[in-house]
Amino acid sequence: MGIIKSDLYRLSATQAAELIRRNCLSAQDYTQALLDRVRLRDPQVRAWVYLDEKAVLDQAKRLDSLPVDQRGPLHGLPVGIKDVFLTRDMPTRYYSRLHAHDGNAAADSAAVSILRSAGAIIFGKTATTEFASMTEGGPCTNPNNPKHTPGGSSSGSAAAVADCQVPLAIATQTGGSIVRPGSLNGCYGFKPTWGTISTEGMGRFSTSADTPGFYARTVEDVEMLARVFRLACNMRSASVPVSPLTVARSKVAFIKTHVWPKAGPGTHAAWNLAHQILQDHGAQVQDVDLPGAFSKISEWRETVVTQEARAAFLPKYLEDKSKIHNDIVKLVEAQDLPSPQKVLEAHDGIARLRADWDQIARNYDIIVTPSAVDEAPEGLKDTGIAVFCTMWTILHAPAMNVPGFRGRCGLPIGLTVVGSRYSDMDVLRSGEAIGAVFNTLQKQDGVGS
Amino acid sequence: MGIIKSDLYRLSATQAAELIRRNCLSAQDYTQALLDRVRLRDPQVRAWVYLDEKAVLDQAKRLDSLPVDQRGPLHGLPVGIKDVFLTRDMPTRYYSRLHAHDGNAAADSAAVSILRSAGAIIFGKTATTEFASMTEGGPCTNPNNPKHTPGGSSSGSAAAVADCQVPLAIATQTGGSIVRPGSLNGCYGFKPTWGTISTEGMGRFSTSADTPGFYARTVEDVEMLARVFRLACNMRSASVPVSPLTVARSKVAFIKTHVWPKAGPGTHAAWNLAHQILQDHGAQVQDVDLPGAFSKISEWRETVVTQEARAAFLPKYLEDKSKIHNDIVKLVEAQDLPSPQKVLEAHDGIARLRADWDQIARNYDIIVTPSAVDEAPEGLKDTGIAVFCTMWTILHAPAMNVPGFRGRCGLPIGLTVVGSRYSDMDVLRSGEAIGAVFNTLQKQDGVGS
Repeated sequence: MGIIKSDLYRLSATQAAELIRRNCLSAQDYTQALLDRVRLRDPQVRAWVYLDEKAVLDQAKRLDSLPVDQRGPLHGLPVGIKDVFLTRDMPTRYYSRLHAHDGNAAADSAAVSILRSAGAIIFGKTATTEFASMTEGGPCTNPNNPKHTPGGSSSGSAAAVADCQVPLAIATQTGGSIVRPGSLNGCYGFKPTWGTISTEGMGRFSTSADTPGFYARTVEDVEMLARVFRLACNMRSASVPVSPLTVARSKVAFIKTHVWPKAGPGTHAAWNLAHQILQDHGAQVQDVDLPGAFSKISEWRETVVTQEARAAFLPKYLEDKSKIHNDIVKLVEAQDLPSPQKVLEAHDGIARLRADWDQIARNYDIIVTPSAVDEAPEGLKDTGIAVFCTMWTILHAPAMNVPGFRGRCGLPIGLTVVGSRYSDMDVLRSGEAIGAVFNTLQKQDGVGS
Repeated sequence: MGIIKSDLYRLSATQAAELIRRNCLSAQDYTQALLDRVRLRDPQVRAWVYLDEKAVLDQAKRLDSLPVDQRGPLHGLPVGIKDVFLTRDMPTRYYSRLHAHDGNAAADSAAVSILRSAGAIIFGKTATTEFASMTEGGPCTNPNNPKHTPGGSSSGSAAAVADCQVPLAIATQTGGSIVRPGSLNGCYGFKPTWGTISTEGMGRFSTSADTPGFYARTVEDVEMLARVFRLACNMRSASVPVSPLTVARSKVAFIKTHVWPKAGPGTHAAWNLAHQILQDHGAQVQDVDLPGAFSKISEWRETVVTQEARAAFLPKYLEDKSKIHNDIVKLVEAQDLPSPQKVLEAHDGIARLRADWDQIARNYDIIVTPSAVDEAPEGLKDTGIAVFCTMWTILHAPAMNVPGFRGRCGLPIGLTVVGSRYSDMDVLRSGEAIGAVFNTLQKQDGVGS
């Protein structure tokens, strides 16, 4: 494998790790290549809210000097950190004026600590929307076209990975904050089963929905992180093998869900094309309608998340309501609070649907559903809507955006693979299988990045 | 109301707040009285792991100078903080060697931020067990007898409140870490409905069970905190009135639960006495058996909490397993992990029981259940077992220890009042009603503190 130095930034995490392991690449050279890429691209993409070049190179230097037997599975791999995870060597500011002057944390958040222990380079903090909860966008742009939003709330993590500024990033999803920016920017975005990654040291929005997860440009790279975080509930170590899945003869469900009427032309086209190409590759494709009870989930989800968000934002409101978004003020001050009965109906209704969903999901090898209403809309003021993602989040189901299509403006569109709770590794397998097929399509058409 | 200066430390939070409001007491004098109490008692009780007298007095001074119209509902009231909540002006160390040198947080945890905004004095950090998860005790002792454990994991918060070193403290419960130390030390310990207080900036153990809560010496004081935290899901502000409940003609359920065989002589005696005295006060007392399905809850709870704890402690393990308790090492390295099916059966079984429990609970005005197996056992090495509390925690039900009895060694024993989810204010009302009755008993018998 010949390495052209100017192309180092394009390496996948798996490729870079292999080169570092074989002593063909140093963590410092790799990091420098990524820093060069950031320098070139940041004036346009603005994915980073905190990045200290010297500190990053110091981390790389320290890792290069580490004896081989002390190196972790992510040795020398830079990872972007959404600015809602506490970091002991960088400030954490939640795109909030309340936290604009906060300094470094006393200790890393759980997710960052795991990455650091595994040998990753904590590269910098990535742009988000206020408390990862608002749809009002910041300065971060879509790397495919700076006039378009990167989506939110994990704007910077998705943009930085899609733009090859880092191979990996971590993020959080309460509605669609991982999967949807994955679709809009054009990379894999994986939201694991709820509860499998500790939320310690992470900003909170909704206890029942908040889920940390990852971005990468290949499924192999997502899997690398999944192993480090031991995402399968019966996974004892970071090295459980997974057998590959082929699309041919696989049972593939296409689930439009009750929000399908929101789908725009780009998602319609991607949907039909995916349907066709999977059939062409020998898959047994079925259109599956969810039982009627699932149509209540949007309303139930809204009730639960709104109530928990009120608890999450009460301290921010009490501290200084003039420094938080007016929508958050209105949320805390709301007069039309639901009754305890309504909140319980929502919690318990969703709990029943979680079990129902798992039963349905087990009938298929691969389940496909939309990631977003369309390609990234124009403008940076609003990061768009997450209607196609929220139900999987509150169902606690693992979900991953698989890139592969383009909308009318030529911007990326992905589709989501989902599964039953704790089938995280199977969802990665199915994402890998259809991702490979979509990739063939891109090459045939001459589209793609 | 005549105030004897040497008795200031005995004031309830409500009494102190009233005196401060009426300008009969300054926050500084009150704080000084409590600091004096701590100086006297700390060599024996050792409830505090961090306490900076000067910083505490500075907070009091600042509050005394605050114009009346800017004063919050907790103005001038010192609160103890379990050492698992991040504080911007004190270190947070989780009784863990991994965090032994951690400094101040960049920002307060959600619960501490709410207290601070309400005008409370963040008094100091209280002793806990390692990551609020282990039963191996630290140096903190039971204020009633230093040879006995204060229980855990909220050891210092319960001991400090019971010993009149502060009127209020906050704590966390994943098994029985609030309610049981309340029983063992002799104060009210309230664990609200899960999800009603944000866990941001709090150490994590089990996402589905971790619940922040409070200690106080009167229900009125617990209510004061409940209002500040807006604990009723339909509570719009800190000032919703609650009508009092009287024991006479109330429907009172006594629920022994399937772990009753664990109850020792002290709990047996308290149980029978409570039964009798409530009947004597005109209550309609019934012994209620839970449906058979509830006997599975201990096993299901164990499955869920163990799996989530593995995720919570993975970062600690990876950072340096030589610095964490061997039980945590064993947990992370466990070979006998449950299958995804078993974990889902546990999650979904518990979710069904939550709804079932609410149905049962709604049939009664007051529900009584044991808080602990007996009075505090002798010795500091082990903080004891929480078998009577764990099910209410995982059911997400509000639960409060009500003190009132004594065991064979003369140490406190309480009983728990529980309710359906989101009936937090009703649970406080029922706790107030039976607490008043138990208090009569103490006066008649000449027992009690």
